[in-house]
Amino acid sequence: MKEYLNEKRILVDLVIKEYLDELRYPEVIAEGMKYSVLNGGKRLRPILLLMTLDLLGIQEKKGLPMSVAIELIHSYSLVHDDLPALDNDDYRRGKFSTHKKFGEPEAILIGDALLTHAFNLITRENLEPSKIVELIKLTSDYAGLNGMIGGQMVDIESEKKEIDLPTLQYIHTHKTGKLLMLPVECACIIAGEELEKKEVLKKYAELIGLAFQIKDDILDIEGTFEEIGKPIGSDKELLKSTYPSIFGMERTKEILYEKIEEAKKIMFNTFGDNARWHIKLADYIGNRKK
Amino acid sequence: MKEYLNEKRILVDLVIKEYLDELRYPEVIAEGMKYSVLNGGKRLRPILLLMTLDLLGIQEKKGLPMSVAIELIHSYSLVHDDLPALDNDDYRRGKFSTHKKFGEPEAILIGDALLTHAFNLITRENLEPSKIVELIKLTSDYAGLNGMIGGQMVDIESEKKEIDLPTLQYIHTHKTGKLLMLPVECACIIAGEELEKKEVLKKYAELIGLAFQIKDDILDIEGTFEEIGKPIGSDKELLKSTYPSIFGMERTKEILYEKIEEAKKIMFNTFGDNARWHIKLADYIGNRKK
Repeated sequence: MKEYLNEKRILVDLVIKEYLDELRYPEVIAEGMKYSVLNGGKRLRPILLLMTLDLLGIQEKKGLPMSVAIELIHSYSLVHDDLPALDNDDYRRGKFSTHKKFGEPEAILIGDALLTHAFNLITRENLEPSKIVELIKLTSDYAGLNGMIGGQMVDIESEKKEIDLPTLQYIHTHKTGKLLMLPVECACIIAGEELEKKEVLKKYAELIGLAFQIKDDILDIEGTFEEIGKPIGSDKELLKSTYPSIFGMERTKEILYEKIEEAKKIMFNTFGDNARWHIKLADYIGNRKK
Repeated sequence: MKEYLNEKRILVDLVIKEYLDELRYPEVIAEGMKYSVLNGGKRLRPILLLMTLDLLGIQEKKGLPMSVAIELIHSYSLVHDDLPALDNDDYRRGKFSTHKKFGEPEAILIGDALLTHAFNLITRENLEPSKIVELIKLTSDYAGLNGMIGGQMVDIESEKKEIDLPTLQYIHTHKTGKLLMLPVECACIIAGEELEKKEVLKKYAELIGLAFQIKDDILDIEGTFEEIGKPIGSDKELLKSTYPSIFGMERTKEILYEKIEEAKKIMFNTFGDNARWHIKLADYIGNRKK
């Protein structure tokens, strides 16, 4: 699986580089966009889109602009997240965060430019215009107030206070979950997949999204700087509610295991062995060290 | 003209309110989006879109989502512009700026949500999908690195130092100009207008955009707090280059007059009396007190 992911990651990085290389001026924004995106990310979201296209029998190249667009949106959210007014993180994946490297006003505009450019890339998809419109509608929905930004806001509001499980679940499903469901649903739009398969894939994405976030909470307690590339607990207040703080570490790991197993089971039941990479990806998310 | 603009502004405000009213949760983002947009703006950009549709013989309602989208993008740019890391403005149109009212992390996310939601609105246009894709491509281009954000960045880089005229013109045509050309070009896309008329309208938009910016520079020196709603010179450094600092006030006012007259002339030559509102709008931009 590591090899497979690595191979895909190299492909995705090449395509990202190609799309960002056309950006020139103002230099600080163009360079800042490249720095923020090409910083050794796992490319989980683009790979999930390409993997799902493949599973649905569609050529991967049909989804390249869309997969880069999702990665730009993911990157912009990290750039703005790291700002002094938000998480105030100086490091991201072991390197300076964008505002430490380029300055704070620059980082705000670099994030804005990444978000704006993502929508430009989607318009370049070689698809029927009606599908492109659907992709943009879904992307703006899942990245916006009712999606990622909503999760981020409730997360901020929940710092330094205890929250109930529904609120924690809202944060997880929105802050991280929506942007992991997006590639899977986009693949379905591109493939014209409407019914049962789409529902299974959405459920799978929801489960691995939740698992991803639970694993993050675990790593935030058990990880090391070398592994996750930033100081442990840097964006967590002591009182902040997480799965481990609500359920304890032992039960949290059980829940993680249950989510992963369910994700694998529903995929195998519907797609059989064709879903092998999706199944391995679920395991990878549960076992990752960073 | 004031009456005409007022009537259109009331219509646009109603439509904006309708579109924003569907936003609920998280409350601080939903309320912050409404606060930032519904704050007594002139609605120049949406009105320009509707006026141009009318001139091209198309019903105004065909452009309503698009015109609101442009206003959301304009609003998000002001929210981020006012942030402490950028212009650090506490007031906007005589009221607290968004970060003063809602907090800085909130204002960053409110701006992000406005930009994201703008693209969602465009997908709702009741048009052929191919035209919607064209609208989104143009919007993301004119609002992004090669448009408004580029102008904003070069503007920041140019503070506290003397710049040459080409750089000042880059700032003007990009920071303000692109978002004034956008409604006119969007109207042409919606109307399916391709050739000469489109070129004339683009030139008109370019001229009034430049006039708008020159007038801004003049008001920043000659205006009052009561008129423009924020402290005079609040976002200008003394050394910052502007039309008045390069050409002197007298010549600057001549240039403003020339741009306005040219904008009126080319419109009258192509559209005759049908362009009366565009002609009056050019005068309004030159004579405005805020």
